[in-house]
Amino acid sequence: MDRERFGRQISFILEADKEKNVFRRTHITGMNRLENDAEHAWHMALMVYLLKEYADEDFNVAKAMMMALIHDVVEIDAGDTYAYDEEAASTQKERETAAAERIFALLPDDQANEMHSIFDEFEEGVTPEARFARAMDNLQPLLLNNANEGVNWRYNKVGRSQVMNRQSSTKSGSEDIWRYSVNIVEENVKKGNILKD
Amino acid sequence: MDRERFGRQISFILEADKEKNVFRRTHITGMNRLENDAEHAWHMALMVYLLKEYADEDFNVAKAMMMALIHDVVEIDAGDTYAYDEEAASTQKERETAAAERIFALLPDDQANEMHSIFDEFEEGVTPEARFARAMDNLQPLLLNNANEGVNWRYNKVGRSQVMNRQSSTKSGSEDIWRYSVNIVEENVKKGNILKD
Repeated sequence: MDRERFGRQISFILEADKEKNVFRRTHITGMNRLENDAEHAWHMALMVYLLKEYADEDFNVAKAMMMALIHDVVEIDAGDTYAYDEEAASTQKERETAAAERIFALLPDDQANEMHSIFDEFEEGVTPEARFARAMDNLQPLLLNNANEGVNWRYNKVGRSQVMNRQSSTKSGSEDIWRYSVNIVEENVKKGNILKD
Repeated sequence: MDRERFGRQISFILEADKEKNVFRRTHITGMNRLENDAEHAWHMALMVYLLKEYADEDFNVAKAMMMALIHDVVEIDAGDTYAYDEEAASTQKERETAAAERIFALLPDDQANEMHSIFDEFEEGVTPEARFARAMDNLQPLLLNNANEGVNWRYNKVGRSQVMNRQSSTKSGSEDIWRYSVNIVEENVKKGNILKD
């Protein structure tokens, strides 16, 4: 074992622990508190594996799961940017790029490159792995919000076009899940949980 | 899309959300609160991928990551059994077997069988995937406890033989990580964080 290499791997693993303190705007089911990034990533990776049959293309499951597990690691520095906060979104890219530089550099060079590349691939959303992982990133909070009777949409006065825009990338990962997601949105518009706009 | 099948998959995914409310006896780094099962599983799956080079045998990475992600799902019903609580350990198997029956049955039959089998495989700890996933299950709280200056060991008056016993299964997954883990234990015995016994 190369102790210096292992030491860098452990540094990254301990740094990643801080994701447990980055809170999102979505409540866990039961509504007793907001969800954090580590929990969201866990749920998403589980969904990549369990729903992989609905992907429109074959993909490398381990890679897509790893994508799910680390896609929010930059939020340790950059914070969570709420999907419907346009002002925060304008500086999001810059904040997250700087965070990725710092955090992935904790790893040994080969793994820093691999993880940074997996992270960028997810952001770009072009490969089959990224398309399906992004579909899960969209579906996971949709399921929680729907299970919680739309409270997060209602509280934040979110409109139909905003949710549809957020969910739109699901279409290129899974037509089936896209159709299911649109149904959930329309049901919540009918219930008044999502504004018609 | 078979709506009945998809509905069962979504039921399981929403049921699994409850892991976010099952708290362990280990604090996250920074010590501000205890860690929950979903966070622990996320961290463990990340470690399976990043430390896979230290496994003593080749293994299926996606399967071992999935093992990590679901290995504690039974604790939704059975609760967390602290590694050093012998009384709770005596009923643990029975409680967890009943939980596995109920929870995996939410999935479509083929996936219920697959997940139950992955769960059992982890518990038995015989295959290369299970050996390495178990090594990560041991290493993850060891890293957190060590980063937190041993506070969980001190608070629970844990002895060297208990920690060594808990860590012992690491040896069959990775000799390198086993040696590293023994060093951490010995350092914490020296510091008085773990009792000599």
